[in-house]
Amino acid sequence: MSDRVRIIEMGPRDGLQNEKSAISVEARIAFVQALVAAGLTTVEVGAFVSPKAIPQMASSDAVLRGVSHVKGAEFHVLVPNEKGYDAARAAGAKVVSVFAAASEGFSRANINCSVAESIERFKPVLARAKADGVKVRGYISCVLGCPFDGEIKPKAVADLAKTLWDLGCYEISLGDTIGVGTPGKAKAMLRAVSANIPVASLAMHFHDTYGQALANLYVGMEEGVRVIDSAAGGLGGCPYAPGATGNVATEDVVYMLEGMGIRTGIDMERLLAATNEISRLLGRPPVSRVATALNAKKKRASL
Amino acid sequence: MSDRVRIIEMGPRDGLQNEKSAISVEARIAFVQALVAAGLTTVEVGAFVSPKAIPQMASSDAVLRGVSHVKGAEFHVLVPNEKGYDAARAAGAKVVSVFAAASEGFSRANINCSVAESIERFKPVLARAKADGVKVRGYISCVLGCPFDGEIKPKAVADLAKTLWDLGCYEISLGDTIGVGTPGKAKAMLRAVSANIPVASLAMHFHDTYGQALANLYVGMEEGVRVIDSAAGGLGGCPYAPGATGNVATEDVVYMLEGMGIRTGIDMERLLAATNEISRLLGRPPVSRVATALNAKKKRASL
Repeated sequence: MSDRVRIIEMGPRDGLQNEKSAISVEARIAFVQALVAAGLTTVEVGAFVSPKAIPQMASSDAVLRGVSHVKGAEFHVLVPNEKGYDAARAAGAKVVSVFAAASEGFSRANINCSVAESIERFKPVLARAKADGVKVRGYISCVLGCPFDGEIKPKAVADLAKTLWDLGCYEISLGDTIGVGTPGKAKAMLRAVSANIPVASLAMHFHDTYGQALANLYVGMEEGVRVIDSAAGGLGGCPYAPGATGNVATEDVVYMLEGMGIRTGIDMERLLAATNEISRLLGRPPVSRVATALNAKKKRASL
Repeated sequence: MSDRVRIIEMGPRDGLQNEKSAISVEARIAFVQALVAAGLTTVEVGAFVSPKAIPQMASSDAVLRGVSHVKGAEFHVLVPNEKGYDAARAAGAKVVSVFAAASEGFSRANINCSVAESIERFKPVLARAKADGVKVRGYISCVLGCPFDGEIKPKAVADLAKTLWDLGCYEISLGDTIGVGTPGKAKAMLRAVSANIPVASLAMHFHDTYGQALANLYVGMEEGVRVIDSAAGGLGGCPYAPGATGNVATEDVVYMLEGMGIRTGIDMERLLAATNEISRLLGRPPVSRVATALNAKKKRASL
């Protein structure tokens, strides 16, 4: 299991979009720069969604433009539809992400349309992206459970993944949006999906709401998945349980991978600095176990 | 992997012994009772150690006596030496635990003697226990790393485990005392130990300081280990990084196991109630991810 793992940093997008306080464009740019300086070579930096619906992601165009000079990293932005795609392209986006839900209940609640309708919305985006030479990443949310529909069948995820793949997504990111998955279910879901599309084109996007993310990532790695979405400090929270934990923390993932002899190219000290700075701006300590332990050790050493 | 897992609840002992505030005997008894009511059938309730060294464990005899009427559960107490054994027996102990370290540095720092000397101290305890029909559980600390000696070789753990086994311990609990282990190392260590003694006689006692405990427990279960030590709410902290996380939380373990179809017999609501009450007494919220998420959901539902 020693081959390289690619980490896609979600902090500036999925991390911040669920935070109560909105962070300034300048601070978001600085956060992205700090993450790249720590060795994160792929960072999702914003979302071209309605600023009324998600004010935390307002001015994502300014953030994307603000990091355009940063070398050695690929920046992703989320686009919900063609309008978002146009705005993202105007700001220089070279990789965009689209998102659909594995459950009808979540699709209705999150983007107010059925899963099939959401696919129809993405079709013109994917066609345009193909013509423009823009890579499209596909997210599927609620792959291991839905706050409205409960359990999700692996087949529902596998079918939707195949649809996104056939439409031209270069990678499918499988989201345990509410963090309810456990290893057996994660394994069954990943096996169903990888029967449809190459495992090399899958990413795991697991939230740590119930503390299961690293165990689920480990079984996913046993299944051959080598791309992991995570957020510095475990940013993100959960809109369905305010106060609970969000994305799996990049620090915790890096600690596990490096401990397993898998080089990530990420400098933990610099990553911790990026996390501590954004945590300071958000006004609360990071929920990452590794960040908490390293900060506690530092505090003790300085006494 | 669907066969039963036995959970040994550490909250009242390993959990509370590292907490800043000492909890009254009455509250400790109530905590044990609440844990048993939640379905935890094995609970370590105290330690017969010097109250000067560990004031949180003072009056462990009164706690053990205070739960003697509780049916359907087995209560363990830690004993460091013959004096502790005598006191534990006088209070009615039927199962005692002894502890040694896999590293010389930790042994020196923790119990002020070499590993070999610590074994000599236990020999009379094990001989007395055998004569008395008392079961002895053996703990090994620092099996995946030591705050003083760094990495620990699997062979050092395997040799010590064999020694404790040959001396008559019915079960060997392998402690990642500072929570630094990762899945590959956990697997290598468990394989080395289970080459020496039956895997059915091994327990995993992993701390969650770096968030790795559930992933490590999962690989341990893949290796066939079926006994897990955990503490309600993730109590315990880490003396080497004050403010960091302690024992893996019983809630998080139960969530993973039940999600994998492994019945634990534990009622999550009652367990959460026990955790919330002890957390209230300690004056801080639980660090367990599951407890945090369930409390956040409850709070939201009550708004």
